[in-house]
Amino acid sequence: MPDKLYFASDYMEGAHPAILNRLVQTNMEHTAGYGLDPYSEAAREKIRAACQAPEADVFFLVGGTQTNATVIDALLRPWQGVVAAETGHIATHEAGAIEFGGHKVLTVPQIDGKLSAETVARCVEAWKQDDNREHTVMPGMVYISQPTEYGTLYSLAELEAISAVCRDAGIPLYMDGARLAYALATPANDAALPDIARLCDAFYIGGTKCGALLGEAVVFPKRGTAPHFFTIVKQHGALLAKGRVAGIQFDALFTDGLYDAIGRTAIAAADRIRAALAEKGYEQALVAPTNQIFVILDPEKAKALSGKVDMGFWENLPDGRVVMRLATSWATTGGDVDRLIGVL
Amino acid sequence: MPDKLYFASDYMEGAHPAILNRLVQTNMEHTAGYGLDPYSEAAREKIRAACQAPEADVFFLVGGTQTNATVIDALLRPWQGVVAAETGHIATHEAGAIEFGGHKVLTVPQIDGKLSAETVARCVEAWKQDDNREHTVMPGMVYISQPTEYGTLYSLAELEAISAVCRDAGIPLYMDGARLAYALATPANDAALPDIARLCDAFYIGGTKCGALLGEAVVFPKRGTAPHFFTIVKQHGALLAKGRVAGIQFDALFTDGLYDAIGRTAIAAADRIRAALAEKGYEQALVAPTNQIFVILDPEKAKALSGKVDMGFWENLPDGRVVMRLATSWATTGGDVDRLIGVL
Amino acid sequence: MPDKLYFASDYMEGAHPAILNRLVQTNMEHTAGYGLDPYSEAAREKIRAACQAPEADVFFLVGGTQTNATVIDALLRPWQGVVAAETGHIATHEAGAIEFGGHKVLTVPQIDGKLSAETVARCVEAWKQDDNREHTVMPGMVYISQPTEYGTLYSLAELEAISAVCRDAGIPLYMDGARLAYALATPANDAALPDIARLCDAFYIGGTKCGALLGEAVVFPKRGTAPHFFTIVKQHGALLAKGRVAGIQFDALFTDGLYDAIGRTAIAAADRIRAALAEKGYEQALVAPTNQIFVILDPEKAKALSGKVDMGFWENLPDGRVVMRLATSWATTGGDVDRLIGVL
Amino acid sequence: MPDKLYFASDYMEGAHPAILNRLVQTNMEHTAGYGLDPYSEAAREKIRAACQAPEADVFFLVGGTQTNATVIDALLRPWQGVVAAETGHIATHEAGAIEFGGHKVLTVPQIDGKLSAETVARCVEAWKQDDNREHTVMPGMVYISQPTEYGTLYSLAELEAISAVCRDAGIPLYMDGARLAYALATPANDAALPDIARLCDAFYIGGTKCGALLGEAVVFPKRGTAPHFFTIVKQHGALLAKGRVAGIQFDALFTDGLYDAIGRTAIAAADRIRAALAEKGYEQALVAPTNQIFVILDPEKAKALSGKVDMGFWENLPDGRVVMRLATSWATTGGDVDRLIGVL
Repeated sequence: MPDKLYFASDYMEGAHPAILNRLVQTNMEHTAGYGLDPYSEAAREKIRAACQAPEADVFFLVGGTQTNATVIDALLRPWQGVVAAETGHIATHEAGAIEFGGHKVLTVPQIDGKLSAETVARCVEAWKQDDNREHTVMPGMVYISQPTEYGTLYSLAELEAISAVCRDAGIPLYMDGARLAYALATPANDAALPDIARLCDAFYIGGTKCGALLGEAVVFPKRGTAPHFFTIVKQHGALLAKGRVAGIQFDALFTDGLYDAIGRTAIAAADRIRAALAEKGYEQALVAPTNQIFVILDPEKAKALSGKVDMGFWENLPDGRVVMRLATSWATTGGDVDRLIGVL
Repeated sequence: MPDKLYFASDYMEGAHPAILNRLVQTNMEHTAGYGLDPYSEAAREKIRAACQAPEADVFFLVGGTQTNATVIDALLRPWQGVVAAETGHIATHEAGAIEFGGHKVLTVPQIDGKLSAETVARCVEAWKQDDNREHTVMPGMVYISQPTEYGTLYSLAELEAISAVCRDAGIPLYMDGARLAYALATPANDAALPDIARLCDAFYIGGTKCGALLGEAVVFPKRGTAPHFFTIVKQHGALLAKGRVAGIQFDALFTDGLYDAIGRTAIAAADRIRAALAEKGYEQALVAPTNQIFVILDPEKAKALSGKVDMGFWENLPDGRVVMRLATSWATTGGDVDRLIGVL
Repeated sequence: MPDKLYFASDYMEGAHPAILNRLVQTNMEHTAGYGLDPYSEAAREKIRAACQAPEADVFFLVGGTQTNATVIDALLRPWQGVVAAETGHIATHEAGAIEFGGHKVLTVPQIDGKLSAETVARCVEAWKQDDNREHTVMPGMVYISQPTEYGTLYSLAELEAISAVCRDAGIPLYMDGARLAYALATPANDAALPDIARLCDAFYIGGTKCGALLGEAVVFPKRGTAPHFFTIVKQHGALLAKGRVAGIQFDALFTDGLYDAIGRTAIAAADRIRAALAEKGYEQALVAPTNQIFVILDPEKAKALSGKVDMGFWENLPDGRVVMRLATSWATTGGDVDRLIGVL
Repeated sequence: MPDKLYFASDYMEGAHPAILNRLVQTNMEHTAGYGLDPYSEAAREKIRAACQAPEADVFFLVGGTQTNATVIDALLRPWQGVVAAETGHIATHEAGAIEFGGHKVLTVPQIDGKLSAETVARCVEAWKQDDNREHTVMPGMVYISQPTEYGTLYSLAELEAISAVCRDAGIPLYMDGARLAYALATPANDAALPDIARLCDAFYIGGTKCGALLGEAVVFPKRGTAPHFFTIVKQHGALLAKGRVAGIQFDALFTDGLYDAIGRTAIAAADRIRAALAEKGYEQALVAPTNQIFVILDPEKAKALSGKVDMGFWENLPDGRVVMRLATSWATTGGDVDRLIGVL
């Protein structure tokens, strides 16, 4: 009997072998802790170069929720909240981590997981026009994800428009890049890292879901954006004693184009699956161009397929059908895709 | 020219090779996230067995400050604070992480980093006797470290006495075991893991400073001690998506006595260094039996030695001399110790 | 030139004269602080009697936002949030006070400011059915206002249905009664204080907007519902040193039916205004039966009328017209209403 | 049988009659809420004049713990804590209100309740010199009380020295003036309101314990010191809907020298009591010059006297004797003092 196929998520394996190799090769070296080691510094330099942001402050944290909570806490003042799509990760699946830090998530409507510049502008303007605004939470920053929780992408023009609204309002724009590799590798994408660094005041380059064991690289393109961020990271319990564990991985990710290659592998696999689904007449809930595929199945088909393929449950539709999520990653092989297409 | 010697801390290298090997061997396996994988489950079972606590709830977090903040937040109610030595890690070097979570650290006097049962009893009793107690923060749990921040150890009798005071008062006893391997491996130690599990309501078995890349294993010996702890972990940004990264490491640490062996290696090295220091007439600031050595040097000697040995600065003495800390670990070889003794 | 008419809100004057008289009469008496005085105790007893809740814990706080934040913080555990209408006061006009305390407000849809039992049940059930629920904030209590922010009322049947859902789910129901006097005095109302005490786990009887200088009486019908609430009140900065300032006022409010009388005065005035508006052909945005009246005006009319009547701005309509709020209170005289009707 | 004498505290009565009269006289006037009324504005102007701080931002809050928590939260950034004497009110009797807001109280040694400039400088310097300072909480502001919790006073020279240390370090100095009237009225005092306004970055002029029903006036001598403070006040539940209740009282307190007169009455009474105690051979635990008297009694005497005089218990001495506190206020009459001296 053939093995089961694994498409449930993009964090089901360890690390990309090139990353793990670097951890093995450097294992017995002695280095300073807390990110002060040469590997972390090298990784910071490579990230600055990739972002064309030579002055950027770069920090390595462990996971996505932690990174969001820490950055948002660092950028907001007490009277401010963070504007996010009602489907945003911070608004839904972070167990109240932002509120634990004392801040309100100001949710606004979205389309396919995306905010529009108009929505952000309307939110900011509504606060400004409200005679009772001092009794309410001020929109103090904007949170977006690239790709979004639905796998969709902001175009460069859309990012420029949102950034312009934020700068006009004097509030920072923050991008959650948990799966940024997959955005960057999508052929349709026109927002490269330097664009993101130019348009955002803070963002993170995801490691955990893009081939690392763990780790997220926070980038503040403008030096000094978040004063005493090191202490805030510590206060949030987000400071690794062996900081090099993240630094070495990001050094590897930004050496010889590994981060790009990881993205391309996943996107190529996802594109083949999407094409096969379309060809075979499957309906997709949302045609997003990145590494997540949302296929609509009737219950019997979902059950049968689940016996062969490990998928993620997404949601039940009112008509009784179910949306399942397939995710590809650096670990998805051409053979895996062939076999998946074979059982569809 | 010989390489520098590294004794600055116990987290200057990667992981013990046996741990790293397990990460490599398992790297391409597909597992569920968030600690639901079989390696995490196996590690939990081995820890339960080592603690003789078959009902224990076991969770894997990333680092020490994070673990302290998360456990303390889970165990305290809003009107309570955590009692700690004025030298306790949570009171000094965690950047206010406990207060960030809304809780007061109620500091009390210590001797060589240790609390006594009498001190704890006095603190609890003072609150009970205070007519204004409802205007103050109630002592709601007790935090101790084994070994302490000064490398000293609680004896079994001392732990039993503190535990008795806590149980009498109806408040939990929590032990920070960041360096627990070194306590357990010290010949003079008489408090084994099952004793700790019997006497504490929560504790953590340190990984980061005891041979892992990262990771701390939180143990609640009594099932259900901290309801919804998984969600609290997530809320604190402490939940690893690839939870197996911690699980595999703890599985390795609790296989074939690795955790014990790591402790013994470090203690043997530290004992040899302490003996050599005594023999050569060096004064030690505190004779603690675990993996940390506190040697008093005059400034010139400190400077000279620092050129050859990477040590940690501990404190300046009023008489102008300086206390330097040497720490051993699993990575300290007999040759390192020989060379260190040679340059002393 | 006649004086301007004041209908902008129900907290534009000092206190009902009977209340102020009691403050004057008792002014030179010596009493214990922090609510331990005999007036506070008498007020507690009268409130218990009025609620037919002889075991109730009763506390006097200062203002509405403070009371909401304190009670919600006392009733929620860290992994829980409070369910509220998206228009609820805690979700909109409390400057993030709930989030400041670390808790998420879980907003759900409303109709005329009201939650339905079905909506609450759906929210609770959705959490229970969600495979990822441990990554999300658990609905841990339900917040409603009586009357709502729109002046509408829950019927007894509606309250019973919501209460049943909450009890079935094992989560407390909390009612914000900032303007409760006006609900109780509305002829159509069928939910009396004993009903509220029977159906809610916590509620407050509003003083500030119902004739007192300040003060809100928190009632936990079941003794011991919120352990150490006194300390939590202090921690929230909500404890009055001269606690009798609130106690004397509530003692007066619950003596000789003053709280009822205050409500009736306001409702009678509001009913006359509503009838006059209808008769004169004014459109009302929402016909709520309590002390707030929402009249739709075209801009010229709004401007002209604002010269004579101090009203509250409510919102701009898409068609260019504006909704203005008129509020009555204990201080609204029949003459004020006559004059207002005269200028409409 | 003569009535009991009341010296237990300075908040056992209502308000000074002149204050209550103003509340009565203005009761039926219609004013805007939230401190936007003309009485609050008049009070602000009078306070600015009394402080010789024409640009000052002045806000009226309700009570002391609330005011401390709100001001400290407004002035600290996340990586900072507040330096306070280990006996400071915020460190002991505020139920953890500062920590509830996420901030650490950095306690330092005191003498008779007072901090010295040297102690503050040492604390600031220790942080600067600490190589691990980024792992610790930065001293971000200094909290002092005038008079202190022990009734002692800072001299002008002492305040100037502390202020100089703070300004040199770039951190604000905040004074808790819960009983400021009694400091200002003490003959030995040489720090007047304009001095305080010149030397502190924030302070509050206490109302609750100085003759008002409630209310504390926060003064930021430099305009804009605490941005969006109104919203922070609201977020802390500290905003009075009927803001005039505080404004009218402070308007009265700063009209015709009432605040000074209240202080003088209390100090004259306290001075007479202290003199009588000395003459009759009583020992005082601490000779503080303000309105609190700390007398040492043996248990039988304490019991006997307590039957005639309502005093506050302060502490038990190791030798079995007890320290009782007598407090005077605006409400203490010459007759009260005569009778007290008679029974001593």
